Amino acid sequence: MPASAKKGTVAVVGAGDYIGAAIARRFAAGGHTVFAGRRNGDKLAPLKAEIEAAGGRCETATLDARKEDDVTAFLQAADAAGPLDACIFNVGGNVNFPLLETTERVFRKVWELSCYAGFLTGREAARLMLPRGRGTIIFTGATASVRGGSGYAAFASAKAGLRAVAQSMARELGPQNIHVAHLVIDAGVDTAFVRERIATRGGAAALDALQPDQLMNPASIGETYWYLHHQPRDAWTFELDLRPYGEKW
Amino acid sequence: MPASAKKGTVAVVGAGDYIGAAIARRFAAGGHTVFAGRRNGDKLAPLKAEIEAAGGRCETATLDARKEDDVTAFLQAADAAGPLDACIFNVGGNVNFPLLETTERVFRKVWELSCYAGFLTGREAARLMLPRGRGTIIFTGATASVRGGSGYAAFASAKAGLRAVAQSMARELGPQNIHVAHLVIDAGVDTAFVRERIATRGGAAALDALQPDQLMNPASIGETYWYLHHQPRDAWTFELDLRPYGEKW
Amino acid sequence: MPASAKKGTVAVVGAGDYIGAAIARRFAAGGHTVFAGRRNGDKLAPLKAEIEAAGGRCETATLDARKEDDVTAFLQAADAAGPLDACIFNVGGNVNFPLLETTERVFRKVWELSCYAGFLTGREAARLMLPRGRGTIIFTGATASVRGGSGYAAFASAKAGLRAVAQSMARELGPQNIHVAHLVIDAGVDTAFVRERIATRGGAAALDALQPDQLMNPASIGETYWYLHHQPRDAWTFELDLRPYGEKW
Amino acid sequence: MPASAKKGTVAVVGAGDYIGAAIARRFAAGGHTVFAGRRNGDKLAPLKAEIEAAGGRCETATLDARKEDDVTAFLQAADAAGPLDACIFNVGGNVNFPLLETTERVFRKVWELSCYAGFLTGREAARLMLPRGRGTIIFTGATASVRGGSGYAAFASAKAGLRAVAQSMARELGPQNIHVAHLVIDAGVDTAFVRERIATRGGAAALDALQPDQLMNPASIGETYWYLHHQPRDAWTFELDLRPYGEKW
Repeated sequence: MPASAKKGTVAVVGAGDYIGAAIARRFAAGGHTVFAGRRNGDKLAPLKAEIEAAGGRCETATLDARKEDDVTAFLQAADAAGPLDACIFNVGGNVNFPLLETTERVFRKVWELSCYAGFLTGREAARLMLPRGRGTIIFTGATASVRGGSGYAAFASAKAGLRAVAQSMARELGPQNIHVAHLVIDAGVDTAFVRERIATRGGAAALDALQPDQLMNPASIGETYWYLHHQPRDAWTFELDLRPYGEKW
Repeated sequence: MPASAKKGTVAVVGAGDYIGAAIARRFAAGGHTVFAGRRNGDKLAPLKAEIEAAGGRCETATLDARKEDDVTAFLQAADAAGPLDACIFNVGGNVNFPLLETTERVFRKVWELSCYAGFLTGREAARLMLPRGRGTIIFTGATASVRGGSGYAAFASAKAGLRAVAQSMARELGPQNIHVAHLVIDAGVDTAFVRERIATRGGAAALDALQPDQLMNPASIGETYWYLHHQPRDAWTFELDLRPYGEKW
Repeated sequence: MPASAKKGTVAVVGAGDYIGAAIARRFAAGGHTVFAGRRNGDKLAPLKAEIEAAGGRCETATLDARKEDDVTAFLQAADAAGPLDACIFNVGGNVNFPLLETTERVFRKVWELSCYAGFLTGREAARLMLPRGRGTIIFTGATASVRGGSGYAAFASAKAGLRAVAQSMARELGPQNIHVAHLVIDAGVDTAFVRERIATRGGAAALDALQPDQLMNPASIGETYWYLHHQPRDAWTFELDLRPYGEKW
Repeated sequence: MPASAKKGTVAVVGAGDYIGAAIARRFAAGGHTVFAGRRNGDKLAPLKAEIEAAGGRCETATLDARKEDDVTAFLQAADAAGPLDACIFNVGGNVNFPLLETTERVFRKVWELSCYAGFLTGREAARLMLPRGRGTIIFTGATASVRGGSGYAAFASAKAGLRAVAQSMARELGPQNIHVAHLVIDAGVDTAFVRERIATRGGAAALDALQPDQLMNPASIGETYWYLHHQPRDAWTFELDLRPYGEKW
């Protein structure tokens, strides 16, 4: 995006407490009005307050990203206040079950959250951006996007499916000046969920043994989205991986 | 499978006119009773007749592979007559639409056919095979399984998702002596659908210009499933690609 | 290869005691005269004796596969007695060193053995096969072909380079009816070298704990080369992976 | 790199007229003393003059990156003036020959330039950085790094080999706080070489038909190296791809 353009809006679908919130903070700090949506929009009040206290602008919404009407309405609102400069899909549904305990309900729900909702989001963002001929659409991926590990039939399937949506969109929309990108977050992010998992597996000692920068700081991830959005169109990245320096891979 | 073992049954979920039928023929010729299922089981009458005329055994069923009960009943019947030695998932749903014309109905349906049904089939086959500690489960993939081309948001997403299911299953079930494999069929198979597509794109001249062996013979593909099923367990293949000698890739 | 064709010769470049020897045995058992070459051809006497005792034919040669003249002479001899139906490149050079201890001499030598020699072998085999318009060229790969692990800068670099040679050849030569394939042997093969490594890392107990079929039997690998050579040209595999059922990957 | 750290030196091995020069300009503009090396160091005079005219610092050197002593001396000089904050390996050797016309001399030379020299550079940079426990090492890759196209046996083999070196280094050195990254430049860069190739293939009309931003601007690529060098260590990228918006892939 040329720096001179008027700053439009940025929609974050799946504005969770960590990565999603960090993305929202970064784009708000950069002068965009952020539209943050999540399942329970009430939980976004602290983020909105924080962004506004820092002089930024943030609108929040309750949004079931699996519902076409919800997604459309959310993005149209962002675009009406916009234009919609960027749209980030950040809904996750990380679960691990032995195959025989992966119910059809779980498999379907994880797909709806992590893949289908991403398709809806990407398609509706593209619908708004294509007539103007510019915009950025970014999808949050994970290790599971590129590796089907044991116990990850549901999650890896959904994330691999989301990655394919992103690739297909990038190939179709790139020549129409829409930048589509996919991040492979290949390690633990510093969230309550990850800290719990570490404690569950390794006990309190494992938590204490965590080194500085061993988990990813959501703010660092937010910075990466900001960078991707600002790449000039003669040198766009479709995919990059992110992991902490100490990660075994 | 040791050659000395009593030959059990082989289930083909998605026994279409081409690849699925070829797989059924190959395993029937090899002495297995084949259970062939597809959306409209009536269409399987000629295949059954052909296999029986050749001295083989084939049971047919009407099966909506997107329905858990259908899949479970179909595989249990195959196992009751079995044991179920191998289960092949061969349902496809190849479509190509510009992103904005990819309706949520299409996206969901393609996923249900090409990915979700594969998960159900794989999981239920595993449930029957695990107590005996042996069996083979094979999934049919396509170019779209590893590449999200323009216009393939729905199909590539579903096929990439299926591949992740297969990988996850292979990693979990391999050590329990269940061989899970995935074929990437990376080219046109000699089917009415592919011939039509060639004619649509290039006219009758394109059809006439087809060289011998330029399209894959379903029988060659069937042979590959047969081979994979017979690999000794100290040297199992998870994935292989297949394409004709003249294919550009 | 159509079964009716007169059986020609098969060259094995890098006919080591395990995989190479197993490939030689398999093709000899299948009726081909095998030309087996390795650094010290004298070590091939037992293999030749074994193959001949079983009624097969085997010629042996001392061969430095890094020397263009050696490779050319070896393959021309095989072709003169042929035609050369298949050529298998099986030279390896698995080493693991910390980066700073990887001397330029090691890096270069591993590349010459594992990559450069493969290029020479593949190119010279192609030169003999192209005028006749048929033949099979197979390269032995490893985990390191697709993954640069810590300590594997030299070996992974050479193996990834070999894989790229194979891919490039497959794309150019496939349409000229030469089948080029690459196997990713993604686990331990039952060799003295691997057993030693297991003992070094885990002690005698680790060796004792080896389960049946936990290491790959070279004969199973040889069977895979045989299979690839016999694929009909309408359905050729470029790449497949091989690992034992119990392998963690 | 924390912004507060004293700015050290940055070495560019393979400081060609386009990408290499752009990297040098970017790091010089950012306050680093750049050590630029290439086969014929005299050709670096204009770059040095340009950087110095802009208020930056640039040292130039004649350097055969295939010679261990040259590489060591060059990097030690940069480090002596440093510390050496970043080292970028940017030597290329893009050639395309039919397989049978790929001489052993070409195959070896392309490897020495594109892969072996990269290994030497990476290893020697690591040797200087490890005692201080920080630094960035970046390798320039290409489409051929991940795809062995027809006619690219030499170049793809060398680039795939370089990528494996980078991966192996990243896995070993990451935990020691050395950031190793690899860029896949998957399209034409705006260089005399690429413009010539376009003209050769498509005539003057093809050159005229070039759209704005259809070729990558070396400055955009330079910016990407700058970005990678500044990622915080809790969120490092190992690999990203770069291509212009209109590129077909």
